[in-house]
Amino acid sequence: MTLDGAPLDLDVAQPALLFDLDGTLVDSVYQHVISWQEALAECGIALSVWRIHRRIGMSGGLFLDALQRETGELGVETLQRLRRLHAEAYLERSAGVVPFPGARELLQLLHARGVPFAIATSGARETAGSALALLDLPPDVPIVTRELVERAKPDPHLFLAAAQLLGMSPRHCFVVGDSVWDLLAAQRAGALGIGLLSGGYGLDELERAGAYRVYADTAEMLVRLEEVGVRPAR
Amino acid sequence: MTLDGAPLDLDVAQPALLFDLDGTLVDSVYQHVISWQEALAECGIALSVWRIHRRIGMSGGLFLDALQRETGELGVETLQRLRRLHAEAYLERSAGVVPFPGARELLQLLHARGVPFAIATSGARETAGSALALLDLPPDVPIVTRELVERAKPDPHLFLAAAQLLGMSPRHCFVVGDSVWDLLAAQRAGALGIGLLSGGYGLDELERAGAYRVYADTAEMLVRLEEVGVRPAR
Repeated sequence: MTLDGAPLDLDVAQPALLFDLDGTLVDSVYQHVISWQEALAECGIALSVWRIHRRIGMSGGLFLDALQRETGELGVETLQRLRRLHAEAYLERSAGVVPFPGARELLQLLHARGVPFAIATSGARETAGSALALLDLPPDVPIVTRELVERAKPDPHLFLAAAQLLGMSPRHCFVVGDSVWDLLAAQRAGALGIGLLSGGYGLDELERAGAYRVYADTAEMLVRLEEVGVRPAR
Repeated sequence: MTLDGAPLDLDVAQPALLFDLDGTLVDSVYQHVISWQEALAECGIALSVWRIHRRIGMSGGLFLDALQRETGELGVETLQRLRRLHAEAYLERSAGVVPFPGARELLQLLHARGVPFAIATSGARETAGSALALLDLPPDVPIVTRELVERAKPDPHLFLAAAQLLGMSPRHCFVVGDSVWDLLAAQRAGALGIGLLSGGYGLDELERAGAYRVYADTAEMLVRLEEVGVRPAR
C-alpha cells in the first residue's frame, strides 16, 4: 500500500538481453584487429594494432572516420578497398574463431526460460554470418546487423532496433558487450550495460563507460545471472 | 648546505632505460597472442584469446604454468611442442611486425645523448631476433633474452641483468614496458616503471601495477622525455 492507500505499482518487467557479437559471444576480436591492420598496410597506411583494437566495435564507418582524422582524406575508392580487404582477411582467419566458454549454454538457458534476447552487431552480415553460425541460435532470435540501421555503435540505433524487434522498451533491456562502444551505445539507448572482459579491454575502461556489471566472459555471466534478474537453473 | 654545515649530496645519476621489446618497441603482441592460440588449438587446448593477451610478457614458462593450473598437467612433450608451434606460427606472421612510431627515433636520441639503455625481453632469442633487427640498434646495446637468466618476468632477473650490463644500479633505471609483468618486475628490481599503452593493456591496469608514468607509445614518450629526466632535442 502507498501513503494514499493505493496499491504499489511494482510491475518490473523481466529484462531482455541485447547481445553484441564479436568479443562478446564469439572470440573473434583479435582476428578482426589483425585483419584491419593487414588491410590498412596493403593500402600503405601504418597504424599500431592496439589503436585498431581500441576502435573495434565501432561502426566501420566511424572507425574509418576516426582513421581519416589521422591520415587525411582517403577517398571513396580507398575506403571501399579497405572494407573489402578487411572482409577478405577476416574470412581467411575465421576458421580459428570459436564461441566463448558458456556462450551457447547462456543463450540456450535464456531460450529455455523464455527470456527474450537479440543480437545487435556493428559488423556486416557477410563477416557476422560465420560467427552467428557457431551459436546454434533458435530461429526466432532477432539479429540486427550494420545494414539494417543508419548508424552503428556508439550510436544507439542497433540496440534500439533490437529492442523494438523484441517488443521491449530499451529501459527493460540489458546490453551485453565487450567494448566501450557497446556500453556508450547502451547509455544512449536508455538501457543498462553489462561489460565482458573477453574482448580484451580492461575492467576500468568498461566501468568508466558506464557498465552496470562487468564479468570475465559469458561463462561467468551464466553463473551470475541472478545479478541481472534472471534466475539460473538449479 | 645542510643543517650541520656539510654540503648537500645531490649527485642524482642520469637515469638509464631498460626496454621491454614486444609491445614496447615493436608492434608484435597481437601476432604473438594469435600464434599462442593457434599452437594451443593444435594441441587440443581451447583458451580465449584475451586470456592469452593478459599473460603475454610473462616468461613462457610462467605462462605455461598458469595454463596448467587451468588445464591440468600437460607433460614435457606437449610443453615443448607448444613452444615450437608458437615459435613457428609467430615467425610465419612476423613479416607484418613493424617498430612502433617513435621507437627508432627514441633509441637514436638516447644513443646520441649518451643515455645508457638496454633491452630485456622474456622472449627467446629465436623469436626476438627478427624484432631486434627492425630497430637499427647501435652495436654496444646490451640485449638480455630469456636464455640468459634463470627466471623471466615478473621476476626481476632480466632487468637486474640489463642494469648490471650497463654498470648501473637498478635504482637509477627506468623500466619501459607495455605489460603489468614489466611493471611488477620493475618493482621487484627496485626500478621505476614507465608503462606504454601500445601492447593493448588499459591505462588503469598499468597504473595499478605501479607505473610511475604511462604514455601511449614510444612516439609520445619521445616528446615527454624531460618527465623522466632526459631532455629532448630542441
